[in-house]
Amino acid sequence: MPVQKIALAEKFDSFNEQWSPKIVASVDDFDVKVVKIEGEFVWHKHDDEDEMFLVIDGAFDMHFRDNIVQLNQGEMIVVPRGTEHKPVAANECRVMVLEKSGVVNTGDAAPSKLTAGTGERI
Amino acid sequence: MPVQKIALAEKFDSFNEQWSPKIVASVDDFDVKVVKIEGEFVWHKHDDEDEMFLVIDGAFDMHFRDNIVQLNQGEMIVVPRGTEHKPVAANECRVMVLEKSGVVNTGDAAPSKLTAGTGERI
Repeated sequence: MPVQKIALAEKFDSFNEQWSPKIVASVDDFDVKVVKIEGEFVWHKHDDEDEMFLVIDGAFDMHFRDNIVQLNQGEMIVVPRGTEHKPVAANECRVMVLEKSGVVNTGDAAPSKLTAGTGERI
Repeated sequence: MPVQKIALAEKFDSFNEQWSPKIVASVDDFDVKVVKIEGEFVWHKHDDEDEMFLVIDGAFDMHFRDNIVQLNQGEMIVVPRGTEHKPVAANECRVMVLEKSGVVNTGDAAPSKLTAGTGERI
């Protein structure tokens, strides 16, 4: 099959759940995920993986223990491995996440209703 | 130092060269690059790495030997390892590229004025 493009807006429009990352592509051993976020996530970290967030639409704050970074459309951040973080979005925000395949969204936090596993492929 | 965000527009505004990918972040052993493209690149492939392209502003065509994929803002494509490809942009286009650190932009093509190496960090 010829190589297909991926329209991010179509992918985002295809689901409603929040805090549930969906895999839209893989690049070597990395997954590209899309996620809708709103409200406050849990504090967590990923001991062995960096995690990149790019705001596709909207805005959110990435909380660190010593800092809060406001992220708007077209802005990105890389959370280094081992760094506690907590995304908070006042309104629904569309985010692309890039991380090694197999990373669980809630990291080392206790499993909860926010735990979405490693992401469904859409 | 606290974790900093990266504003893609500021990064793109900071240089003028075309076909010269700049590294704006690293995620584990991957680099996130920004590149301005216009005109026609060379046919090439990367034998051992997939390569992801996301259009941040503008549009371009990714040529494959058996297909041409038109990519607009907010659309992405993953070129599988070993697949010949050639980006062509009628007008200047701002693209984010994600690939394993150390990948050379012209892949297996003969070195030319388009060969920018593995990317300067900005």
